[in-house]
Amino acid sequence: MDDGLELLTEAECRSLLASGSIGRVGVTVGALPVILPVNYAFVDGTIVFRTAEGTKLRAAVDRAVIAFEVDDYDEVLQRGWSVLAVGHASEVAGEDDLATFRALGLAPWADGTRTHYVRLVPEVLTGRRIVAV
Amino acid sequence: MDDGLELLTEAECRSLLASGSIGRVGVTVGALPVILPVNYAFVDGTIVFRTAEGTKLRAAVDRAVIAFEVDDYDEVLQRGWSVLAVGHASEVAGEDDLATFRALGLAPWADGTRTHYVRLVPEVLTGRRIVAV
Repeated sequence: MDDGLELLTEAECRSLLASGSIGRVGVTVGALPVILPVNYAFVDGTIVFRTAEGTKLRAAVDRAVIAFEVDDYDEVLQRGWSVLAVGHASEVAGEDDLATFRALGLAPWADGTRTHYVRLVPEVLTGRRIVAV
Repeated sequence: MDDGLELLTEAECRSLLASGSIGRVGVTVGALPVILPVNYAFVDGTIVFRTAEGTKLRAAVDRAVIAFEVDDYDEVLQRGWSVLAVGHASEVAGEDDLATFRALGLAPWADGTRTHYVRLVPEVLTGRRIVAV
């Protein structure tokens, strides 16, 4: 338990990461904390999402330590879970890797050309389950 | 427009903040970025959530600049929105204010005694709407 929340095992965290498609990236932009949603994939232990050339997000995540969070809640039953991954993000550069990630069909919902792939291998992976009392 | 996303007006951001009940707090804990979900209320332009004595979250948010994010997505229609508020957080200390916030009935879902109220008046408030293309 952690402050009234049930801690998840690492296996549960990985399973929940694999089940999601929308996550939130936490980074620092101009000394201010920012949280931005992204759609993502979790492949072979790696979180992958896309960014566009010239965006604040792209500049902020490159070689930075970032937080990545996924959660789900049932507001009626008042229960849910959250998983937090922290680690160094890096742009996918090699053609082999790019081909692999392009094959995921990780299409961003929004318009705009998100041609850059960012990868995060979690160095810290924690999760909590919330059950109403 | 902002990188393929439609920017929301400040009035839309405030309306969406008022419609939500689960948000995510982005802070720095031990030099690492962290994102933690909280349930919250948005009252008179102020975001209010609860933390417990002795927790990492409580220590991290007190007098710190934090990010607070709320979003909602329809995965089938592939559209949604996100709102990001950034500003200085502070614990609610005065008895009058505490009484006001206690009256909100902002019950945390999880067990544990979250006796501390944190307030955030957004200094930066931005929002984006995502529509699939």
